Amino acid sequence: MKKAAAANLESLRVVLVRSRNPLNIGAAARVMSNFGVFHLRVVTPYEKAFREAVSAVGAAPLLAAAEEYDALADAVRDCSLVVGTTAIGHRELQHKLYPLDEAAKRIRKKLRGGRVAVLFGSEKTGLSNRELSHCHWLLRIPTREEHRSMNLAQAVGVVIYELSRGASSVTTRNKLTSSAEMGTVDRLAAALLEALHASGYIHRRSVASAEEKLRRMLLRFALSSADAEVLLGMTHKILWKLNSRK
Amino acid sequence: MKKAAAANLESLRVVLVRSRNPLNIGAAARVMSNFGVFHLRVVTPYEKAFREAVSAVGAAPLLAAAEEYDALADAVRDCSLVVGTTAIGHRELQHKLYPLDEAAKRIRKKLRGGRVAVLFGSEKTGLSNRELSHCHWLLRIPTREEHRSMNLAQAVGVVIYELSRGASSVTTRNKLTSSAEMGTVDRLAAALLEALHASGYIHRRSVASAEEKLRRMLLRFALSSADAEVLLGMTHKILWKLNSRK
Repeated sequence: MKKAAAANLESLRVVLVRSRNPLNIGAAARVMSNFGVFHLRVVTPYEKAFREAVSAVGAAPLLAAAEEYDALADAVRDCSLVVGTTAIGHRELQHKLYPLDEAAKRIRKKLRGGRVAVLFGSEKTGLSNRELSHCHWLLRIPTREEHRSMNLAQAVGVVIYELSRGASSVTTRNKLTSSAEMGTVDRLAAALLEALHASGYIHRRSVASAEEKLRRMLLRFALSSADAEVLLGMTHKILWKLNSRK
Repeated sequence: MKKAAAANLESLRVVLVRSRNPLNIGAAARVMSNFGVFHLRVVTPYEKAFREAVSAVGAAPLLAAAEEYDALADAVRDCSLVVGTTAIGHRELQHKLYPLDEAAKRIRKKLRGGRVAVLFGSEKTGLSNRELSHCHWLLRIPTREEHRSMNLAQAVGVVIYELSRGASSVTTRNKLTSSAEMGTVDRLAAALLEALHASGYIHRRSVASAEEKLRRMLLRFALSSADAEVLLGMTHKILWKLNSRK
């Protein structure tokens, strides 16, 4: 499954159109590399020396391999789906608009059969109507209506993250912590009870109900056996001190 | 339904710890604002004039309202869940580690009952072991093993995006037990530490590391506020007895 996912993203092309700030191009390259998307295309960037962007930390090879185009049509020629990104909403009535999560599902499906280009417009103006005319449909990142405009590289980051999410079923390995056995919990409850009694926290008469409450509380903590042993050691030590001073 | 979602994110605190580059703080503020997260806390930033960061496009009010702290403990005192972010994997065996999507579900659930802090460490070193000792558990953004380290603001962006995505989904109501706030946990740790010291369980020299271990253990118990108060009362009583017998 992990291999198949990688193969999918292999067919993805991130296309930055008329980007103004080379630091954004570098930052986009970095976040692409973070999530395993390696093919960057750049159309008529404002700054020709974008490949030197210091923001591409750890992604210098990706940035060096970026393909540069003079025309958007050339940059998407070999793609079977072209998706434009927009912050503004449904600018062009001719286009369908999907929210990012729905769009990501459609893109992932398409990636099985061919290359998909996702277009990001310039920082100032987004994609022009002419550029949008190359798109099959548009996706919108669900930002707040009152503050829609994202940083370019952030937009790339969120889109890439969403596209990669179905792909990676990352297995996290939590070390299996063994739970404390009831015997240990009981010993702990007893020791604590004795300490509480010695300190005057509970009185002889109410010991029975206090014991129950104490055990219930300890069980709520879902103690690991290691933690239970530590607590038991602490309590014994405190108890010993309490008793030795009588 | 949308209103409920907004209310949820209202309880979220993004905590940037020892950030070095003020541009990253500004960019984090911008992407927070994009997705409707408004409460930023900054702990000992490298650059004191971070509020002037030009990268906070459209988010100047959010950045101006950011709260600055000299100590992490103060920045999370009123939160009932503290989550650390890490790129590295399971650095501390004491901590549970969840991938972002799973972590987001857990955080959203908690946000219904109290404040949640999500911590991001410095660009160079991430969160230190001492800083991690303030966390209940950790989340990991599923970046590639070969290129794990994200730009700080990108990491904030992806986490915020993931947290906001489910916000509009139907809320399932689990019985809400309110969790202990960090201030209570800290007081409990301090009282226990004193009792352990008074009883001879720990020596003056090892107090610092014992405090960390103790806090981590208490956080593993995921104390309810009621249980935390009970434990605090017990510990104070025992401590009083230990001291009165000197």
